Amino acid sequence: MENASPVDVAWMRRAIELAARGIGSTHPNPVVGCVITSREGQPVGEGFHAVAGGPHAEVVALRMAGDQARGGTAYVTLEPCNHTGRTGPCADALIEAGIARVLYAVPDPNQQAAGGAEKLRSKNLAVEQGVLQQEAEEVNQVWLHSVRAGRPFVTWKFATTLDGRSAAPDRSSRWITGELARADVHRKRAECDAIAVGTQTVLDDDPELTVRDQLDRPAQRQPLRVVVGDREIPPTARVRNDRAETLLLPTHDPAEVLRQLDDRQIRHLWLEGGPTLAAAFLRARLVDQIVAYVAPAVLGSGFSAIGDLGAESIDHLRRFHLADVTRLGDDVRLTLTPLDRRTF
Amino acid sequence: MENASPVDVAWMRRAIELAARGIGSTHPNPVVGCVITSREGQPVGEGFHAVAGGPHAEVVALRMAGDQARGGTAYVTLEPCNHTGRTGPCADALIEAGIARVLYAVPDPNQQAAGGAEKLRSKNLAVEQGVLQQEAEEVNQVWLHSVRAGRPFVTWKFATTLDGRSAAPDRSSRWITGELARADVHRKRAECDAIAVGTQTVLDDDPELTVRDQLDRPAQRQPLRVVVGDREIPPTARVRNDRAETLLLPTHDPAEVLRQLDDRQIRHLWLEGGPTLAAAFLRARLVDQIVAYVAPAVLGSGFSAIGDLGAESIDHLRRFHLADVTRLGDDVRLTLTPLDRRTF
Ligand SMILES: NC(=O)c1ccc[n+]([C@@H]2O[C@H](COP(=O)([O-])OP(=O)(O)OC[C@H]3O[C@@H](n4cnc5c(N)ncnc54)[C@H](OP(=O)(O)O)[C@@H]3O)[C@@H](O)[C@H]2O)c1
Ligand SMILES: NC(=O)c1ccc[n+]([C@@H]2O[C@H](COP(=O)([O-])OP(=O)(O)OC[C@H]3O[C@@H](n4cnc5c(N)ncnc54)[C@H](OP(=O)(O)O)[C@@H]3O)[C@@H](O)[C@H]2O)c1
Repeated sequence: MENASPVDVAWMRRAIELAARGIGSTHPNPVVGCVITSREGQPVGEGFHAVAGGPHAEVVALRMAGDQARGGTAYVTLEPCNHTGRTGPCADALIEAGIARVLYAVPDPNQQAAGGAEKLRSKNLAVEQGVLQQEAEEVNQVWLHSVRAGRPFVTWKFATTLDGRSAAPDRSSRWITGELARADVHRKRAECDAIAVGTQTVLDDDPELTVRDQLDRPAQRQPLRVVVGDREIPPTARVRNDRAETLLLPTHDPAEVLRQLDDRQIRHLWLEGGPTLAAAFLRARLVDQIVAYVAPAVLGSGFSAIGDLGAESIDHLRRFHLADVTRLGDDVRLTLTPLDRRTF
Repeated sequence: MENASPVDVAWMRRAIELAARGIGSTHPNPVVGCVITSREGQPVGEGFHAVAGGPHAEVVALRMAGDQARGGTAYVTLEPCNHTGRTGPCADALIEAGIARVLYAVPDPNQQAAGGAEKLRSKNLAVEQGVLQQEAEEVNQVWLHSVRAGRPFVTWKFATTLDGRSAAPDRSSRWITGELARADVHRKRAECDAIAVGTQTVLDDDPELTVRDQLDRPAQRQPLRVVVGDREIPPTARVRNDRAETLLLPTHDPAEVLRQLDDRQIRHLWLEGGPTLAAAFLRARLVDQIVAYVAPAVLGSGFSAIGDLGAESIDHLRRFHLADVTRLGDDVRLTLTPLDRRTF
């Protein structure tokens, strides 16, 4: 946008910081942050969307600002909605509060909710779009991707030895990585709204697939547990306990899995493997992010972290962008994204 | 030691810095650094051992100090030698120069050269040992290890995909890692005095196993090339060209390989694989360091980075200490050391 002053950039940056606080708890909604400044340019209100069903960021910030919002500016990370859902349209709230100018970073890709900017303009508010758009897109990466692609964002997570083994020949795999890495997995699981594995992983490891804290206490909000495959899961399997909801999907088609999850408004699928299910998603080019926990250890035998992808020569190597490297105790977490910034 | 003042520590640190400049070019000698301060405590000379056959650190520093060494102090990273080799004993040089006090960090483990401290004391110099010993040992890690263990220090290097593949099913493996990682390999090869591979790697890849710069020009000093295994290597193989010396070792016994290299005063062996030869060294617990270049890529099939180690369950996992993680472009270099700080 043309009119972004350093002051505008600073307040939008603050709005993005606020938005980030909602990551992991707003599903199926986006994260949104909002700052209101008065006619004189003083900050008088701020807010973020904390949980689906709760008030939107603009409403929280306007409440804090009260009368001081009149003649002021609203900085919002996402185009204010024009949609009456569980709360009224935010565009109307901004108009009623007497806001004079609205800056938003990212246009709403959601057909249902969009049109907010147009409505604001029709009521003679000054409306500008684009300041810090890239940063604001990043904080909403998962939601934007899922709305634009019409399917959940897929993160494939795996733990591996340095020689690419995720289980020993006798199928034992506990524990390849250390405590810090495992705690990190729980934090990241908590940011998703579904966790999927193939039937074999359930039959081998009997995982509970819940989010737990360091003291092994389950979190309040639990992602949906998804088991993919035709075989039956015994009723005594831990994945069938009552600590979270569980969906059994007797299919081998990753696209079908994502369709079913999209119907349930799942935005972020955390794919925990095993190697066979992960390979099916990779082959179908339905993986948007890879999070690999690499242990400084070698096995020399056992099960590979990933199933066959059909590669015959080095030309078939599937290469990604290394987005992040983080040391977690004696393990290393690598985060990979598609080279073309789209899906693998 | 008891008498180390902050001033003593500072000069010893400088001596260690100087010693480090010799890394990679002093084989089969240790790296050594030396600082001389005058009677008044002013620095008047410094030096390091730059190349085997060249003058020792003490001699270089004393030459620079000249008469100002009289009544002064010498800081040396390793016990001054008492051995007449290509140069006279450094202990004598210090005595003749009129040095009053000698501080050294690490005692000489070499039977032949040791005894320097005793000789200095017998001539009434004040002699103290131990300041910054750990740092000084680190800079000389390879040499100290090889003298103490009576065999070369072994670094196993490999390049791998994130799923632990070091070649595709058709044996193609060029290139898994990027340019920065490959340049790093050449820098690190240059610090070693021998590079070993198994016959299969020579037959598959026809590598030259020389140290080259970014423009592919060979370095002046080339490590010894070693090919391990019974099969014959065709005379046209690049490893047999005249750019460096080559040793063919028709054995499958890693201990025998190290014996042969020790006879040739090899201190640091850079083990480039392949998986079979590396596994033999790991099984024999003859690997002292692992340097792994991990590419953000998956293959899903092909040859494992490491051969069978006999592991049946996760209890057989061979775990190491993660000494370093460094990003090199889109690749990651992991450096591992034994958990017990000894050999794997
Ligand atoms: N280290 C890690 O991060 C990690 C994570 C998870 C698992 N693991 C290990 O991985 C091992 C299990 O490996 P796995 O690969 O057999 O497990 P998996 O991928 O969890 O399950 C494989 C099963 O999923 C079903 N399936 C779903 N979609 C499929 C498709 N497109 N193609 C083929 N099958 C499909 C099939 O079962 P049906 O016959 O029932 O249809 C198949 O047998 C366990 O030992 C576990 O410990 C490790
Ligand atoms: N990515 C990397 O970092 C990297 C590095 C090197 C190689 N590679 C790839 O690895 C592949 C070759 O793998 P490889 O494992 O066959 O190669 P290798 O380890 O270089 O050679 C294996 C051969 O070494 C001999 N050998 C020596 N000691 C042995 C022992 N203790 N036990 C058994 N054999 C012993 C045997 O040959 P004889 O029958 O002649 O005795 C054996 O066939 C190539 O495709 C190459 O591209 C990758």
